[in-house]
Amino acid sequence: MKIPWFEQASRRRKFMIGVSGGMDSVALLHMLHEAGFRKVIVCHLDHGLRGNSSAGDSKFVSLLAKAMGYGVIVGKSNVRCMMKHTGDSLETAGRTARHAFFADCAKEQRCRTLLLAHHADDQAETVLWNLLRGSLGFRGMSEETEINMAGREMHVVRPLLGVRKNDIRDWMDARRHAWREDASNAVNDVVRNRIRNEAIPLLDDIAKRDVTSVLLRSAETDDTWRNLLDWAKMRASALDPQGRIHLRTFRELPSVLRNAVMADYLRAGGVVQLDRDLLGRCDLLSDVHQPAVVNLPGGRFLKRRQGRIFIDES
Amino acid sequence: MKIPWFEQASRRRKFMIGVSGGMDSVALLHMLHEAGFRKVIVCHLDHGLRGNSSAGDSKFVSLLAKAMGYGVIVGKSNVRCMMKHTGDSLETAGRTARHAFFADCAKEQRCRTLLLAHHADDQAETVLWNLLRGSLGFRGMSEETEINMAGREMHVVRPLLGVRKNDIRDWMDARRHAWREDASNAVNDVVRNRIRNEAIPLLDDIAKRDVTSVLLRSAETDDTWRNLLDWAKMRASALDPQGRIHLRTFRELPSVLRNAVMADYLRAGGVVQLDRDLLGRCDLLSDVHQPAVVNLPGGRFLKRRQGRIFIDES
Repeated sequence: MKIPWFEQASRRRKFMIGVSGGMDSVALLHMLHEAGFRKVIVCHLDHGLRGNSSAGDSKFVSLLAKAMGYGVIVGKSNVRCMMKHTGDSLETAGRTARHAFFADCAKEQRCRTLLLAHHADDQAETVLWNLLRGSLGFRGMSEETEINMAGREMHVVRPLLGVRKNDIRDWMDARRHAWREDASNAVNDVVRNRIRNEAIPLLDDIAKRDVTSVLLRSAETDDTWRNLLDWAKMRASALDPQGRIHLRTFRELPSVLRNAVMADYLRAGGVVQLDRDLLGRCDLLSDVHQPAVVNLPGGRFLKRRQGRIFIDES
Repeated sequence: MKIPWFEQASRRRKFMIGVSGGMDSVALLHMLHEAGFRKVIVCHLDHGLRGNSSAGDSKFVSLLAKAMGYGVIVGKSNVRCMMKHTGDSLETAGRTARHAFFADCAKEQRCRTLLLAHHADDQAETVLWNLLRGSLGFRGMSEETEINMAGREMHVVRPLLGVRKNDIRDWMDARRHAWREDASNAVNDVVRNRIRNEAIPLLDDIAKRDVTSVLLRSAETDDTWRNLLDWAKMRASALDPQGRIHLRTFRELPSVLRNAVMADYLRAGGVVQLDRDLLGRCDLLSDVHQPAVVNLPGGRFLKRRQGRIFIDES
């Protein structure tokens, strides 16, 4: 299996890895070991959801890490209890617990790079889920990204994001590596499990093809649109020398580009909490028949005056 | 119900409308009549798929059209027989038969505008189906478009494309209009019916929301990307004064724009049957470390030479 990240990552750098004990994370751990990575810290959180099996998972991960000569941190949380107190879903409570745990590990280990074992089938499920939720375009997970976990900026890497689950299984089987069945499913919420076990198999059957690979390709396509948008923003030249939006230029741009230019302008001006609704109202300023002022959060205003659109404090 | 097309269409122009006898097309016919359209030609094709019900559908449609004072053309085809001879699917054979029929009607009536009753739920199913088939982005049907039917260029309008099926049903119920149950489902292929009856209900249930409206919004988003691409093509200036592709400019473009520029260049040069694979190989010419020639269909070549990419006959 040829995985781009493994080709270029330094064997001597320190990495943390989240290991549930399930097949995917155990595979990634073995791959690191086989590839000769030296300073790996195995981070395992017991979510307290699998009764006696939870303790078995923790023990399995600890022993494996020690056999490889890697450091190991085992945390424990009570996700059900968190759910009761916060009213959060299993998905949200589980994520909050993991983020807090990983942030603690990062602090203790003075290491901010965290490897996670999400693979291509997880990615396809995420793409479908985001699609059903109505996020714009085909959004998936990123192979490398910054994620704020409990106030700490973490560098998250998913080396297996391009690898299909079956290929991971074959890799594990060929080496006769063991893993804990169901360890990683425990924290899947109902929706994730239904997408995996009901929606994708049904869609495969209706379309008579591998819908997972179709979804993966769609996510790539979406990245290419975003690249186009970045290029177009540079070409738009919609700001005047004073950094205000030049109305006549702005007005001629296609709508998705107008929204992107507007969002960048507002963000640069310190406006946070941009949503589709606010952007829609700001966009109306490009129409001279519409009112010339839009209220911004924080008591500020976006105004159209003398052929320019700009933020005004009063 | 406020439908944009009805606001602006001339009541005195001649329109053909495809009427199966099912709820949607009967509703559109009643709307035309209620709105005072004068010259409507009702086109009904009996696909020969519903046995005795087929004759009932034809009779229902004829009587309704005559009662409204509209002209009516009833055609008959044997779709099962076509399938046997061509090996086509029900979907393909049905479409071929309808296209031939509508083209005949158009010739006879000297009218090239055809109204079809596809609605928003049809649109969402189409979007999902195109997604599962792996077409790029969220492709749906267009409200107004040119379609070549059996060699004849037809102007197809779908006034109900933004209207939900339930709203059409309410409109019909409020007026106590009758229709033929199942008349329009007869020519739905298995895939279309499974998307409608299995996939969308399951996805609604998993996501706990109206997935149809999410899909409709996604299709709109996709249109905005296409508008951006059109804008970007104009700005790319990747052709030299002789109309060849300027390598250095071309190379700096984002990939989706390179593909669009290349596709336009090849189409203008008479290359048909462009697919993703051919475009991918042509795109490699922008990398000077790759071979400088790509074979095109029809024994022609795409070449990179002296900072240009161009079609060469030999």
